[in-house]
Amino acid sequence: MKKVTVALDCMGGDYAPQEPVKGAVEAVKANGNVFVKLYGVKSDIEAELSKYQYNTEAIEVIDAPEIIEMAESPVNAIREKENSSLVKCLRAVRDGEADGMVSAGSTGANLVGGQVIIGRIKGVKRPPLAPLLPTKNGVVLLIDCGANVDPKAKNLVQFAKMGSVYMENVVGIKNPKVGLLNIGAEEEKGNALTKETYSLLDKVDDINFVGNVEARDIPEGAVDVAVCDAFTGNMVLKTYEGVGAVMLSKIKGALLSSLKTKIGALLIKSSLKETMKAFNIEQYGGAPLLGLNGLLVKTHGNSKSVEIKNSILQCVTFQEMDINNKIIEKINK
Amino acid sequence: MKKVTVALDCMGGDYAPQEPVKGAVEAVKANGNVFVKLYGVKSDIEAELSKYQYNTEAIEVIDAPEIIEMAESPVNAIREKENSSLVKCLRAVRDGEADGMVSAGSTGANLVGGQVIIGRIKGVKRPPLAPLLPTKNGVVLLIDCGANVDPKAKNLVQFAKMGSVYMENVVGIKNPKVGLLNIGAEEEKGNALTKETYSLLDKVDDINFVGNVEARDIPEGAVDVAVCDAFTGNMVLKTYEGVGAVMLSKIKGALLSSLKTKIGALLIKSSLKETMKAFNIEQYGGAPLLGLNGLLVKTHGNSKSVEIKNSILQCVTFQEMDINNKIIEKINK
Repeated sequence: MKKVTVALDCMGGDYAPQEPVKGAVEAVKANGNVFVKLYGVKSDIEAELSKYQYNTEAIEVIDAPEIIEMAESPVNAIREKENSSLVKCLRAVRDGEADGMVSAGSTGANLVGGQVIIGRIKGVKRPPLAPLLPTKNGVVLLIDCGANVDPKAKNLVQFAKMGSVYMENVVGIKNPKVGLLNIGAEEEKGNALTKETYSLLDKVDDINFVGNVEARDIPEGAVDVAVCDAFTGNMVLKTYEGVGAVMLSKIKGALLSSLKTKIGALLIKSSLKETMKAFNIEQYGGAPLLGLNGLLVKTHGNSKSVEIKNSILQCVTFQEMDINNKIIEKINK
Repeated sequence: MKKVTVALDCMGGDYAPQEPVKGAVEAVKANGNVFVKLYGVKSDIEAELSKYQYNTEAIEVIDAPEIIEMAESPVNAIREKENSSLVKCLRAVRDGEADGMVSAGSTGANLVGGQVIIGRIKGVKRPPLAPLLPTKNGVVLLIDCGANVDPKAKNLVQFAKMGSVYMENVVGIKNPKVGLLNIGAEEEKGNALTKETYSLLDKVDDINFVGNVEARDIPEGAVDVAVCDAFTGNMVLKTYEGVGAVMLSKIKGALLSSLKTKIGALLIKSSLKETMKAFNIEQYGGAPLLGLNGLLVKTHGNSKSVEIKNSILQCVTFQEMDINNKIIEKINK
């Protein structure tokens, strides 16, 4: 079996190149069917690699000395920095030198680069960025949280189809429940976009559309795929992150407020940590940008090796399960 | 000084009439300047009232035997149920028999009734429903979470002005920071609506507009007033509620997972409870529906007496601070 090749942007994110390099080593240890190409400042990457024992035939280093800054205009960066690790990763996927790529760099540059350099697959109008969020007992795919802030209803129908294929084949949820994120459960609820989208989704017979879903029901795990425009997705995603962070800091404050609570904290610490870990939005790894000629996984800017590793392995599953052909088939039906 | 008269819908919500009646008694005990008119099934209300000691000259009971069900069409209910407690409250405000009203009943019926029966004040195009959400160290007014799902930019400018007057005069925050809820901090970010709204808000010189604010920064308390369309507001509000509820249930599960954690839980219980209470979205009482000829405060369906009491007192402050004239002045400038 031909190995799956993944291009890794080693210069993106807050902990570059240490954590990306570590994540690559962990990925090739975890899965014998992956070959990782590390892009970035060669000497820095090699210095990091020298810390680890690993199968040297599963990793290659490619020099890409230019750096894209977080504050740079995405369009300019993609156009002008041909020797940046990000642009080289994008081109590797475009040219078939890699099956997928992983980057913790600028979201804007990834979104633009994915469309402009990698390019869309047949029939896909707008590629959605779709993070997995933790729920009470599992995960939900929130699609779209990317760049499509004023999409059309037919774009959302494509998101529903792509999300459905992804959850079924990559996450392994049989016949995933697809909900339209809306302000009420009834069909007639919503704004102009959701009303039109509802009537279109209701006619699609090869996804399991269960109707409208309210934002309150997302953390409860009411659906497997929550479809929305990117503005709405951003609101839900960022509120999730913000409320989670503030509640955790409040809990910490309560636990440290007196000697009594500090003793109590020692007794509950490991149990609470385990529970909260499952609800930490950043544990779920990167968000796939779907509908491109090869998978692009965007990880958090502050991602550590485990998120990088899981994102690399996500590319392997994506390739092995032949997701893009399944998407093409569903979209163009 | 003439007492402020508040009409209370005693038949709305999950705990009617017990909790509304209890809330009214608590309100007249807390504030000598309020007169509460209780609307609903007279015999039921009087039976509840007989449980308490209170100044009988501060409370009046008015019979309103019809009940509006939660599942009813708001428009039909408002039109047809003239003898319901809700419609009688709305008419009392319209006719100047009450300065404001409080209801835990159907949100839809309250929104429709507020516009159709009470009516808008001069210059206000769309009345926004504006709940207070807890933040790390205070509260934020999320305006609008009501019925305006496809508003125009100029409507959002009015929301900003009304929210600013409310936070300054009712909550007591000097020169409140007004932010536009958006997907990024930069001026050029957003969808068509937020881009247009930004350029309009930037020209308003009598509010403290601080620019775009991301949903992540709302729980952090970055602004005092967060302006948005009602669809977006609903997403943020419901995500707040959902994530909060799921995290609390997760924490409970962690605390009860073993004998060790149960002992720990006993030690931290009161401190944690106190902390979490401050972040319980339902503690903050009702949401004002602004821009009407008299204040309408919509409380949660499951509100207890403390929320009812605080909502009645909110009507008092609203009247005493002459908020509507301040809104009229700011809107029509």
